[in-house]
Amino acid sequence: MPGFTGGTLSRVADHRNDAEAFAAAMGDWRARLLKLDGYDPEITEDGRLGWTMVTEAPDDAHIVLLGFDEGRPRFAAAPEGVPAPPLRSPALFRALDQLEAGEAATYAMARSVLDWNARHRFCANCGTLTESFRAGWGRKCGNCATEHFPRVDPVVIMIAEHDGRALLGRQPSWPAGRYSALAGFLEPGESIEEAVAREIQEEAGVSVSGVRYVASQPWPFPSQLMIACIGIADDDAITLDDNELETAGWFTRDEVRAALAGDGPFVAPPNYAIAHTLLTRWAAEG
Amino acid sequence: MPGFTGGTLSRVADHRNDAEAFAAAMGDWRARLLKLDGYDPEITEDGRLGWTMVTEAPDDAHIVLLGFDEGRPRFAAAPEGVPAPPLRSPALFRALDQLEAGEAATYAMARSVLDWNARHRFCANCGTLTESFRAGWGRKCGNCATEHFPRVDPVVIMIAEHDGRALLGRQPSWPAGRYSALAGFLEPGESIEEAVAREIQEEAGVSVSGVRYVASQPWPFPSQLMIACIGIADDDAITLDDNELETAGWFTRDEVRAALAGDGPFVAPPNYAIAHTLLTRWAAEG
Ligand SMILES: [Zn+2]
Ligand SMILES: [Zn+2]
Repeated sequence: MPGFTGGTLSRVADHRNDAEAFAAAMGDWRARLLKLDGYDPEITEDGRLGWTMVTEAPDDAHIVLLGFDEGRPRFAAAPEGVPAPPLRSPALFRALDQLEAGEAATYAMARSVLDWNARHRFCANCGTLTESFRAGWGRKCGNCATEHFPRVDPVVIMIAEHDGRALLGRQPSWPAGRYSALAGFLEPGESIEEAVAREIQEEAGVSVSGVRYVASQPWPFPSQLMIACIGIADDDAITLDDNELETAGWFTRDEVRAALAGDGPFVAPPNYAIAHTLLTRWAAEG
Repeated sequence: MPGFTGGTLSRVADHRNDAEAFAAAMGDWRARLLKLDGYDPEITEDGRLGWTMVTEAPDDAHIVLLGFDEGRPRFAAAPEGVPAPPLRSPALFRALDQLEAGEAATYAMARSVLDWNARHRFCANCGTLTESFRAGWGRKCGNCATEHFPRVDPVVIMIAEHDGRALLGRQPSWPAGRYSALAGFLEPGESIEEAVAREIQEEAGVSVSGVRYVASQPWPFPSQLMIACIGIADDDAITLDDNELETAGWFTRDEVRAALAGDGPFVAPPNYAIAHTLLTRWAAEG
């Protein structure tokens, strides 16, 4: 299962626009608030998210209704206007390795919506300070009446395949030895398949066709939808865009399998990244 | 080919951050500006987009570099701060039926980026008026230095399948007799597959599993990424959310094929909508 998927909360979107239902959920004795240290999750010893009483929310916090866990209301809160730090903390990396799959999905939802609220306090249409509405799932402008909703930015992440080998690259900022799939933001006016072909062309000078979809996952730093694909390369000549990549190369299925097992020619991406899922699926095809 | 795909412009993203390359493109004698009437395209008699000289751009317009057409620079412009109207005009509907596929893709890119600029003039982080940068593909805040990039909102659109029949619904605002696939915005913290299952559950009370991806396309009203999928329904009992749908029902492949041919039990979605692609592909499977 791809990282950050498999959440078990029911999102109860019908409660978001219903002030009475929202108030009843807040007042429910079973209601709980996600325990956060800033934007990092507080993890219990058995790899689960921590929860506390909703009365523990800071006074100036905006509250987000995450959903219901078998009827029990679940909320998250963050102080108004304090966004998540741009870099993930070492504590968060360790936490992500410990969290059970469904728990990471709940955290991803909470973090993306809280951070979006903090980074989008003002109306992009007129500049006025907005107010949270729809149980934290939107912000409304009192001046021009524009309603704003959380962003999800689609990103394509992909390997090109040629003659039984996969094209992987590395960015200069990555840990030593790490190689992974290429990736980039999908732009207005293109399909998933077109974005995949454009990105591989831009970053590595490789032409692909026959793009096929493999899997998807949310990525809450801050709020991407990762869409993993495989394209078939016309040939294996690489022309690197060194603004994007430090290097790139072709790897066999045996090499990828060895890397995923921790003993290959490169350091594989972490379990919770969709690149890991993508490489695992591709390696299993051969 | 799905609607609004098949564009032939090279996006030349490397020119966006390069002031000299941008100026050279603007000054190129082969440079052209997309002919627009407001946000509607002006179509030639042979179903192509109209182009004019870049000097025709309004004085207060922001300029977007669309890309290169075999080396020839192509731009679009719209007056700063005038967004596209919320409803598509009848003229636009007629134009979309006339436009060649690749031409519609170029128009979709132009319209989404121009409209995003017009609706996002102010910094969502601090409320200050921003300035266009990156050749129209971003806006930068002079106060807090936040960089903003065009939104693309992923939408899942899907049919549930059960026993050789597909679940279709109709919204009250649609033309008489129209049925189509269900659809909804993907939310933070969910995968494509999870969004598909949630939306079908919310709108029709139908549980699906085994969701598979079929196709995607951009939808420039204002800037969605439409992701078409099929899920397998556990049973065919429908519990309608009448805030979303007026009605819903199950249709056989023969019925869908007849509707796509213009002679069925419902009015099919138009050619340029991905629902048309989705129904066509599903009908061809049986
Ligand atoms: Zn406003
Ligand atoms: Zn700002």
